[in-house]
Amino acid sequence: MSKPMGAIPADFRGEGGMLLIGGRRCDDLVAEAGDTPLFVYDLAMIDRRMARFRGAFGGIRLHYAVKANSYQPLLRHVASKVDGLDIASGGELKLALEAGARAREIAFAGPGKRDSELAAAIRHDVTLNCESEGEAERALAIAAGLGRTPRLAVRVNPDFEIRGSGMRMGGGAKPFGIDSERAAALVRRIVDSGADWRGFHIFAGSQALESAALVEAQSKALALAAKLADEAGAAPPSVNLGGGFGIPYFHGERPLDVEAVGEALSEALKKRPQILADTSFAIELGRWLVGEAGVYLTRIVDRKESHGKTFLVTDGGMHHQLAASGNFGQVVRRNFPVAIANRFGALAEEKASIVGCLCTPLDRLADDVMTPKAGPGDLVAVFLAGAYGLSASPQHFLAQQPALEMAVGGGG
Amino acid sequence: MSKPMGAIPADFRGEGGMLLIGGRRCDDLVAEAGDTPLFVYDLAMIDRRMARFRGAFGGIRLHYAVKANSYQPLLRHVASKVDGLDIASGGELKLALEAGARAREIAFAGPGKRDSELAAAIRHDVTLNCESEGEAERALAIAAGLGRTPRLAVRVNPDFEIRGSGMRMGGGAKPFGIDSERAAALVRRIVDSGADWRGFHIFAGSQALESAALVEAQSKALALAAKLADEAGAAPPSVNLGGGFGIPYFHGERPLDVEAVGEALSEALKKRPQILADTSFAIELGRWLVGEAGVYLTRIVDRKESHGKTFLVTDGGMHHQLAASGNFGQVVRRNFPVAIANRFGALAEEKASIVGCLCTPLDRLADDVMTPKAGPGDLVAVFLAGAYGLSASPQHFLAQQPALEMAVGGGG
Repeated sequence: MSKPMGAIPADFRGEGGMLLIGGRRCDDLVAEAGDTPLFVYDLAMIDRRMARFRGAFGGIRLHYAVKANSYQPLLRHVASKVDGLDIASGGELKLALEAGARAREIAFAGPGKRDSELAAAIRHDVTLNCESEGEAERALAIAAGLGRTPRLAVRVNPDFEIRGSGMRMGGGAKPFGIDSERAAALVRRIVDSGADWRGFHIFAGSQALESAALVEAQSKALALAAKLADEAGAAPPSVNLGGGFGIPYFHGERPLDVEAVGEALSEALKKRPQILADTSFAIELGRWLVGEAGVYLTRIVDRKESHGKTFLVTDGGMHHQLAASGNFGQVVRRNFPVAIANRFGALAEEKASIVGCLCTPLDRLADDVMTPKAGPGDLVAVFLAGAYGLSASPQHFLAQQPALEMAVGGGG
Repeated sequence: MSKPMGAIPADFRGEGGMLLIGGRRCDDLVAEAGDTPLFVYDLAMIDRRMARFRGAFGGIRLHYAVKANSYQPLLRHVASKVDGLDIASGGELKLALEAGARAREIAFAGPGKRDSELAAAIRHDVTLNCESEGEAERALAIAAGLGRTPRLAVRVNPDFEIRGSGMRMGGGAKPFGIDSERAAALVRRIVDSGADWRGFHIFAGSQALESAALVEAQSKALALAAKLADEAGAAPPSVNLGGGFGIPYFHGERPLDVEAVGEALSEALKKRPQILADTSFAIELGRWLVGEAGVYLTRIVDRKESHGKTFLVTDGGMHHQLAASGNFGQVVRRNFPVAIANRFGALAEEKASIVGCLCTPLDRLADDVMTPKAGPGDLVAVFLAGAYGLSASPQHFLAQQPALEMAVGGGG
């Protein structure tokens, strides 16, 4: 019996059996890049996602979570179109500045910020989302030493999570942010210190596909922000409501109804408490913006049979696409959508397993899937490779050839 | 309730509360390296492992599996003392040659070898472990084009596995090697082609801790090699019996009784079939040689409480030590052994979770373990970091600061 795979994003089409990415034949893209494996990111798809967000969330600021994909041409493109960048390290600060982001539109979250990272952020007027009282004190001391007024927000560990989210970031004991019952006191400390208090960052989960769960979480985040502001006696200039918008990776998963979430948030904002009247709101998205826009192309090197099973061995693998191998937070491995890129749309006529070139049984790209007949020289496309792909994979494992990256489309 | 962790290897001691690695204080090592996170590898421990192998396996060639750790100073040290290196990519070929290995003592296994990798190996007289008939034909054609006699061994997918091994590499349909019923025909093809047939490579599993399971697998590998040689009518110059020697990572696991394995193999070899009389035998070890000799040192950046739970947030994490976070082939996350390195041996007086600096709940180094009280500035040691550590981790994730590496000890 074959195993199912996730759905290929509807944006992708073939022409004469060849997968097109950003309107271009994928064999041409490989020829232009010079080799496989190759990640291709379709910037026009990202543009459509941003436009869809703008349509559904009028008046809400759109932030991009750099950690999803910091490939410089992609980041530059996205940075020019969003209202802010969320970073998670000093390295991402450099990447964001290189991409042309305005430092005052950058916010830095992450539970283990070093002193040197705090100093760099303060020097650039980047907003620090304080993850603990201790970190806030370090930031204040460093800012005093530098003679600067730091921009400080408070990251709250909310006492709720997004129901059914792929990763729980709130609800219970967490290393992220500070527990909500201590947040108001920290706001007071920041305001009293003379720092520029920027507001709250409330992140309750990620990779959610149910709109009702997101609506509920956003509504709770709004209420929490108001309650904390009241307690602190200070209106937040800005509230980052987190993100959590998921994309369907696996068989049976359905896309998020983003418009339903936007509509509910718009309603909730109309009725928001007075203390949030002048607050600006942001949603921080990574995966949902760029995940579906990336395709990982790898070439079949060998076709072999073993005990009646067909293996297509590629020149890529888990060292570039760890998540597709099932080793990135998944408990049970399931198949990402894949295709034989140069027989795109052809009849799936045989069952095969597509594996990587690493000498480990962990290196599986697709297990027992139905594919058109394929062999050495053919190209395999692994979809949903735009977020948490190359940068989240052990690229140096087995000293294999590095993957190439390329951005296409997105005229302006 | 706290959760258990694996046992710290018995080689490690403290002095005045400071962990020593290779006889040196770990705070001095960090000062010398210049920063954390830092991997330190104790070459003297690796020497002791090699000596123990030699004592237990007289007459068996010792190969090192480069993929376990290819840090150049470590690789150079090990390469000078073992009888052969096993590599898994063209990149590892370069690393092995740079480390001073003699090319004729290198063997290349891996299911997805590119033509360019085959050509490089053939040019250097490196032995190719052929993983399929198709790969053997490619190698023969490339060798003919280069006007060279290739050194070809046959990697066999055995019809057995090491019972209880951490990763199954044999038994059933596999992308590695060719099924044993087709191996003799491939040997004939290689011999008849005029290539230099080097013998068999039979790898049945890894990370085994039960000596009886290894004894059984080696005995079966021996019998399989004899049977295939008989079928092919050709005596193998060499047989690589694989490796599979495990190390205890988790609570309750016990070290492998290597001497028992060596004794049984020695007995089995005395009674080996005539066709293997002049065969040389190799065992290929990676993890067992170097895994326990590595320590990952990371500094605590923040100490925080959330809902009654204590978190120690470090400047390292899963981007350097993916396996310790539970995201490298594990189904259930369990704790690697860890310690507060500058309170080594001190009373464990509180329960804490040690997490990395990444902004993801996957980034856990130790969950609810008992530790001496620790806070910012203290050093955390994560043990068993010598194999499949840095190179098997997503180093570029979140653009965090890279880890440093250092080798100590091993005077000769």
